[in-house]
Amino acid sequence: MEAYSRNLDVANGHVDLSHGAGGRAMGQLIEGIFHKAFDNIWLRAGNDQSAFTVPGGRMVMSTDGYVVSPLFFPGGNIGSLAVHGTINDIAMAAARPLYLSASFIIEEGFPLADLERIAESMGVASRGAGVPIITGDTKVVERGKADGVFISTSGVGVVPDGLDLRADAARPGDAVILSGSIGDHGIAVMSKRENLEFDAAVVSDSAALHGLVTAMVEAGGRQIRLMRDPTRGGIAATLNEIASQSKVGFHIDEEAIPVKPEVAAACELLGVDPLNVANEGKLVAVAAPEGAKAILAAMRAHPLGREAAVVGHVVADDDCFVQMATSFGGGRIVDWLSGEQLPRIC
Amino acid sequence: MEAYSRNLDVANGHVDLSHGAGGRAMGQLIEGIFHKAFDNIWLRAGNDQSAFTVPGGRMVMSTDGYVVSPLFFPGGNIGSLAVHGTINDIAMAAARPLYLSASFIIEEGFPLADLERIAESMGVASRGAGVPIITGDTKVVERGKADGVFISTSGVGVVPDGLDLRADAARPGDAVILSGSIGDHGIAVMSKRENLEFDAAVVSDSAALHGLVTAMVEAGGRQIRLMRDPTRGGIAATLNEIASQSKVGFHIDEEAIPVKPEVAAACELLGVDPLNVANEGKLVAVAAPEGAKAILAAMRAHPLGREAAVVGHVVADDDCFVQMATSFGGGRIVDWLSGEQLPRIC
Repeated sequence: MEAYSRNLDVANGHVDLSHGAGGRAMGQLIEGIFHKAFDNIWLRAGNDQSAFTVPGGRMVMSTDGYVVSPLFFPGGNIGSLAVHGTINDIAMAAARPLYLSASFIIEEGFPLADLERIAESMGVASRGAGVPIITGDTKVVERGKADGVFISTSGVGVVPDGLDLRADAARPGDAVILSGSIGDHGIAVMSKRENLEFDAAVVSDSAALHGLVTAMVEAGGRQIRLMRDPTRGGIAATLNEIASQSKVGFHIDEEAIPVKPEVAAACELLGVDPLNVANEGKLVAVAAPEGAKAILAAMRAHPLGREAAVVGHVVADDDCFVQMATSFGGGRIVDWLSGEQLPRIC
Repeated sequence: MEAYSRNLDVANGHVDLSHGAGGRAMGQLIEGIFHKAFDNIWLRAGNDQSAFTVPGGRMVMSTDGYVVSPLFFPGGNIGSLAVHGTINDIAMAAARPLYLSASFIIEEGFPLADLERIAESMGVASRGAGVPIITGDTKVVERGKADGVFISTSGVGVVPDGLDLRADAARPGDAVILSGSIGDHGIAVMSKRENLEFDAAVVSDSAALHGLVTAMVEAGGRQIRLMRDPTRGGIAATLNEIASQSKVGFHIDEEAIPVKPEVAAACELLGVDPLNVANEGKLVAVAAPEGAKAILAAMRAHPLGREAAVVGHVVADDDCFVQMATSFGGGRIVDWLSGEQLPRIC
């Protein structure tokens, strides 16, 4: 057809309003960038929705919007983040992620080359995780009405028989296991945004955690009460959220929480607490005490859980406080942030 | 907890960056506006994903971003549109929509009262359709980095046994059935945007079509080759897309296509062709000739298909042209729009 012979100039071109108009230019953008990068049989079928077959049983669905700024940061970009983040939300239910969808809202004038880089990262992340992006949508808004590109991804997954993780399932005596060092993602994004140079570059931990979760489930699935990925708000927000949903408290040991020296240094410089900083490749699991050892061993045997550690335990507490024994021998309450400390971190 | 005693001032308040930060203010916004409006057991469970049980078999997934401007228009707003639109994408596969997710990207300073109105419309649309919004996400970006609110919804549904609608399934001789008058949504939005006053107000046709689809499937499911909802780009884009995917042409009869007089008048004033104008409560079905009569009768018996009509048929055409017999006795090629005629219509 006529318009398809006018090639998309990815190297020098920019997104314009016609790319969101439902006509030929949109078809060209979708084929030339998204289908090429995500390449799979579902997208090639060219429907407004994609079909797949499931065995039946318990499934989960999740969605997240991504507005990270800057769009590109050490260790990833908004595209890889949008794939990993939604896979992780599915995995936190102990589910096996099956399929993703992606909705793009793009600002007029956005370079096609940047869009292609983002789409390619999504393709790499999605293929790497074995979770295809099977359907999508593209909208374009006028210059100044968005900020480059926003991506919302959704995902579906299947839950293994007999597992039912719930936000209110933590019980006094349960172990709190953290899969690795905290603060890497938030500091990587902030460093890039603020143009900070550190001796050792901080790289986002953005990663898909479903492989780690599978290992944990095999080692002690029924002993896992619940899991969360501590993104926005960091582990402080995650633990406070669980505490209030399960109506329990936490005792946490600061010494046990891994923080990379370069992240600790950056946090000090930026005046933020690593407990409040976003992670994109870490999880917190609350596990029955009798299962903690086996789960921890399975995590440590996985590349994404080598630094996993029991960092505390659940206590009975009507005030739902998260209390931390500090490295200096004292103690303090770990609170949620009430304001916006690190905007647009994911 | 402390922050929950500081009530959300929905009447006078505005969204600020803390509402997207993963802390207490975000929890308050989600509970005070979204959970209240969408009220269901899945959201109350408070997980980052929601679980449900399916019978197994063929499912579909779809996603759409909504950036309509203005946010409120005659016949709906961005919220009801985001619910109807994604339900319709699911329904076009002849699937029964089951669940929705919603991702909100909100501009700092957006009035909480407007956000509540939008959320309430989503709740009404979702309950009216029997398709709950079971999971969601909220991000906030700085003033000037978005335009009020953008919403991306995703949906999943189940396909009845034996049905497999495909974009490439149209065959010469098939009937083209349109469910009702065209152009209402696009003109309603444009009129509001351009502040145009017409003698008769044009109201968006935004509606959930899955009930109509169920009636069609019962009447002749296996005779339906494929369905599309002609949104962005109007039926001109839809027919051209099907033509190119099925490698066929169309002969369409202008006289048979219902256009409301007030929509026709507005199109003339705005210099647009109703064939290119977006619809949000209409569908185009391509059906085997032997099934067309029964399907049409079932559509006319449904409130959303009373004006349904056979508007043309599929022809063999290597050029994949959509040809139209005009009301004046002539003929013309109905082309896709190559540029952006009606931006941000959905």
